[in-house]
Amino acid sequence: MREWARAAAAPTTVTAVVNVGDDLWLSGLRVCPDLDSVMYALAGVNDAERGWGRAGERERVAGELAAYGTGWPWFTLGDLDLGTHIARTGWLHEGLPLSEATRRLAARWDLGVELLPASDDPVETHVVTDAGELHFEEWWTRHRGTVPARRFVQHGVELARPGPGVLAAIAETDLVLLAPSNPVVSIGTILGIDGIREAVRATAAPVVGVSPIIGGAVVRGMADACLEAIGVETSARAVGAWYGARSSAGLLDGWLVGEEDAEAVPALEAAGLRAASVPLWMRDPSTTARMVEAAVALARRD
Amino acid sequence: MREWARAAAAPTTVTAVVNVGDDLWLSGLRVCPDLDSVMYALAGVNDAERGWGRAGERERVAGELAAYGTGWPWFTLGDLDLGTHIARTGWLHEGLPLSEATRRLAARWDLGVELLPASDDPVETHVVTDAGELHFEEWWTRHRGTVPARRFVQHGVELARPGPGVLAAIAETDLVLLAPSNPVVSIGTILGIDGIREAVRATAAPVVGVSPIIGGAVVRGMADACLEAIGVETSARAVGAWYGARSSAGLLDGWLVGEEDAEAVPALEAAGLRAASVPLWMRDPSTTARMVEAAVALARRD
Repeated sequence: MREWARAAAAPTTVTAVVNVGDDLWLSGLRVCPDLDSVMYALAGVNDAERGWGRAGERERVAGELAAYGTGWPWFTLGDLDLGTHIARTGWLHEGLPLSEATRRLAARWDLGVELLPASDDPVETHVVTDAGELHFEEWWTRHRGTVPARRFVQHGVELARPGPGVLAAIAETDLVLLAPSNPVVSIGTILGIDGIREAVRATAAPVVGVSPIIGGAVVRGMADACLEAIGVETSARAVGAWYGARSSAGLLDGWLVGEEDAEAVPALEAAGLRAASVPLWMRDPSTTARMVEAAVALARRD
Repeated sequence: MREWARAAAAPTTVTAVVNVGDDLWLSGLRVCPDLDSVMYALAGVNDAERGWGRAGERERVAGELAAYGTGWPWFTLGDLDLGTHIARTGWLHEGLPLSEATRRLAARWDLGVELLPASDDPVETHVVTDAGELHFEEWWTRHRGTVPARRFVQHGVELARPGPGVLAAIAETDLVLLAPSNPVVSIGTILGIDGIREAVRATAAPVVGVSPIIGGAVVRGMADACLEAIGVETSARAVGAWYGARSSAGLLDGWLVGEEDAEAVPALEAAGLRAASVPLWMRDPSTTARMVEAAVALARRD
């Protein structure tokens, strides 16, 4: 409780720049897995047990699709979740950009965080395998990442511009936090959009990353398979080194690793990064709050 | 029961050529009100009480749309119904024509009737009012036909070709029945598609229509407002005369009117139509069966 009270006493605004590379069209509906996951989680309506979608979900619509012999058995959309996709798709068809559709969706909930799509332009992460290219969500959700990934392609990324407010948010913030998200296909996609990496490099604010690898294990998802494809070891130290220190053309001022990775701290420090090890498994809100406090402390450390 | 037993003894195939002019896109989903109404009714899963959509319907998805401050309060789509639209839209996005998407939807049910969209090409019926143009479904469902219609426009109809099998069904059948449907915007739209009116005029089969007006009242919908817009009186006699006798460049060999309109029969016969009056309110299956039998008898009359 103390942590939350303290946070409430210091009014802050938080802007989340969210990956759009996993977005996909399903039967004419625009599905944005990352934006929706963040929105549902912040709204407190996510299905924490299952790890995706809405709590209290039913699948009557998906049942109809199955009865018609169609649908996406590997990517079942619940009824409540479909409401989000249909609302968004309607706004996109009216000509609104994704950022405005996202703002309208978020307006329903009390998120406490502003959600900005990394881009209003379509960027689609594909996985190149020996059997051909797959949309990232198909590779991840359908094949559980078991088909070896040769490399990742972000279609459209070279044409994509940062979404409205993204560069300003990075330039004007007091602290940039790189979430413990997939460094290759989530954060990597965001950083690949024209100007975003440069904005992170140029901001006056300290940049602190939180390792998505804890004791050699991924927090969630297929970061290990993704890292393997780009030739980076699945370790907190290797990922920190891959992002690199701002002082040597990298992105980070600080790198927070798990308590399991305490032994990596000296090497990271030697490479020009402020590093610290703390509990990174976000078991409950107070652990998460302490993790964020540690990141802030690392940012403030001289 | 007798009627059904008799029908079962005489194997027949029935092909329904269905209006597509009311079809619309809602938030990227292709909605086909007439095809779906016919499909649900023949499948026995329609909501007979409400008069549209699926029985046992819920509106969880629509509730989400409302919570996001969007959707179409005047055109609420139930969850089960949305399954149909999403399945169809998915197939259309795969490049399949509407006729094939319709065949796949119908394959789920035991319809006993082949459903053919009048066209695979988009035709969109709009209502011209003093306040501008409205999609027919918006005029009908949202405004309940209360905004005076000046005229109807079938956008795309001049480019539309008959759907696969439509002309052949008309040419090769033993009997063409014009359903007691809206003569202006439903049957009128079908007949406006290149070659369909000519096929009805040219078929060797007798053509019998069933009046959509009974005792001056419409069976359903806004046929009266539609007839008024084209300057045709809302009466069984006037609609029969408007379709016209095949013997004088019209479409009909016979015209079935309600028992309430028995006095119109001599005038219709004088105009070159075989005419008869029978109960036309389709209160139950046996009344409907007797109505169809009367239409068949009229077709066979010399």
